[in-house]
Amino acid sequence: MIKVIQIKKPGDGRVFEILETEMKLPKDNEVVIDVHFSGINFADILMRQGLYPGAPAFPFVPGYEISGVVKQVGKDVVLFKAGDRVLAGCHFGGYANTVTLPDWQVKPLPDNWSLEEGAAVTVSFLTAYLTLFDEGRVRTGDKVLIDCATGALGSLCTQMLLANGVHVHGLTSSPKKKSTLEERGVKAFTHEEFYADSNLKDYDFILNSQGGTSIKKHYNRLAKTGRVVCIGASGAVGAGKRNLFKALKTVLSMPKFNPIDLMNDNRGIYGLNALKFFEDAEFLSKRMDRFNDFDARPVVDKAFSYQEVDKAHDYIEQKLSRGKVLLSWK
Amino acid sequence: MIKVIQIKKPGDGRVFEILETEMKLPKDNEVVIDVHFSGINFADILMRQGLYPGAPAFPFVPGYEISGVVKQVGKDVVLFKAGDRVLAGCHFGGYANTVTLPDWQVKPLPDNWSLEEGAAVTVSFLTAYLTLFDEGRVRTGDKVLIDCATGALGSLCTQMLLANGVHVHGLTSSPKKKSTLEERGVKAFTHEEFYADSNLKDYDFILNSQGGTSIKKHYNRLAKTGRVVCIGASGAVGAGKRNLFKALKTVLSMPKFNPIDLMNDNRGIYGLNALKFFEDAEFLSKRMDRFNDFDARPVVDKAFSYQEVDKAHDYIEQKLSRGKVLLSWK
Repeated sequence: MIKVIQIKKPGDGRVFEILETEMKLPKDNEVVIDVHFSGINFADILMRQGLYPGAPAFPFVPGYEISGVVKQVGKDVVLFKAGDRVLAGCHFGGYANTVTLPDWQVKPLPDNWSLEEGAAVTVSFLTAYLTLFDEGRVRTGDKVLIDCATGALGSLCTQMLLANGVHVHGLTSSPKKKSTLEERGVKAFTHEEFYADSNLKDYDFILNSQGGTSIKKHYNRLAKTGRVVCIGASGAVGAGKRNLFKALKTVLSMPKFNPIDLMNDNRGIYGLNALKFFEDAEFLSKRMDRFNDFDARPVVDKAFSYQEVDKAHDYIEQKLSRGKVLLSWK
Repeated sequence: MIKVIQIKKPGDGRVFEILETEMKLPKDNEVVIDVHFSGINFADILMRQGLYPGAPAFPFVPGYEISGVVKQVGKDVVLFKAGDRVLAGCHFGGYANTVTLPDWQVKPLPDNWSLEEGAAVTVSFLTAYLTLFDEGRVRTGDKVLIDCATGALGSLCTQMLLANGVHVHGLTSSPKKKSTLEERGVKAFTHEEFYADSNLKDYDFILNSQGGTSIKKHYNRLAKTGRVVCIGASGAVGAGKRNLFKALKTVLSMPKFNPIDLMNDNRGIYGLNALKFFEDAEFLSKRMDRFNDFDARPVVDKAFSYQEVDKAHDYIEQKLSRGKVLLSWK
């Protein structure tokens, strides 16, 4: 029997349910992973709140990324054997102590990485890579603003950008987190400081994770031919509880962009939802192989026991995290 | 006395007026150019029709680019002397047989280039460069669609892209022009063929010059993380006469892009109006220096005598041109 965490219905922490279920036997090309850590993503929280349009119907098992040790392999699998340390991205189902996936979706965990790091890298790396290098195509010498610089994604972006000779400015919600950013080589500002100082402008690339009215404010700070990449609406989530009013306000305050205005401004706007790529396991697998191009390491904040999944969600909702938050199964 | 062509008021070819006026003596850093050719741009036609929001008040002298021979220089000018062959970009005033400009806005004409080519390159090169390499940041191996492939801009884009190892598809309004494109190394389609074949998709970059409803159609043919760059609304111009209804229809049919849709689609949209950069002569001068990075040559269709400026505009409006159309002053 294996353990999975499902979300029964939209709501607060009480909607989680830990179930025991049969283990899925591997097909010929599949790998069964004994999961050590499951990564938690912001989208999981929106899904739990019933605010994520692409979510499966309730009840379902959330989770896009795991790390663990191979337990069993199908008869055609040659790349992995029982005992190998691995990481994987999956299209839901990651909140489980055992996961079965096709071998090409599974990647070996680098020798010098911890299992915690393995569960923290997939979604953040793909979002960072697709945003910075596939959409925005950031170049050496660019001036970049990351509006979520202290989190798991932001810290990975920062490392990848600094290694490419990019000037990085980072925003944080808390003055206390500024020193963490400065130590990493990022020029740090609180959101309030940034909006108050109109000289902070001429960015070639701005990563916008807040959504709502912040998008237009960021757009107005772009350099000639610059771009904003929108990756979410973290402003839609109220601390600690489901807040439909706040979510609706953020969504409705999303600006619309007319090509005529874009022409007059000589600017661009992108959207990215890396989780959409999880539907296309082949594309996902190829992009995951780009890990090796970078020396970047994911920043893990802490792991909660799987029995405390409600506390883990709450911790992220209250914006207390300074890196990836995980569920531990051991 | 010098000659200039001014547009008296919005309207058809009869609104042009050739005036004689005093020559402006050069300031210390200025160069007086005896103009041989003036380039005509699509924006000039929209301005003549009264359909271009950024145009000066009537009457005004249009024109963004010229070529010619230096006639006289201010006392601080060291880069040029009388008799030098030059080209220049200017913020209006190019429809004239003599133009006075600061020296850093003037560039030497490459030895093996004709004066016709010199007057044909500035606006097209800047639009091509800013669109492809500053905004869209096209890379080797990309698949690109150019919707105006036969014109002066399209042919320059094509050369710059093919030299960078990009796969280029080009659209043309006329089946007869397809062979011209194929000879240049472009896979050619008429607009009708393109829209009828839904397998023509997965473009990393699409240059949209038509505007209106074509923008959304192009957007729907993008690859994952792809981008459309909108550079105009050529669809707004009716053949041979001012057509406010058609222009209004094109402008009103411009789609608006919501960041949430962009996220779900993993795509981006840019606007570019290279003529806006002509207001910033320093930026313009720097970008013009990038000419030297490319071996591309402008394609000149034909030159009309300045006295036939009305016929020259008409020729472009009727979409007869296969390259740059010029005014000749000699």
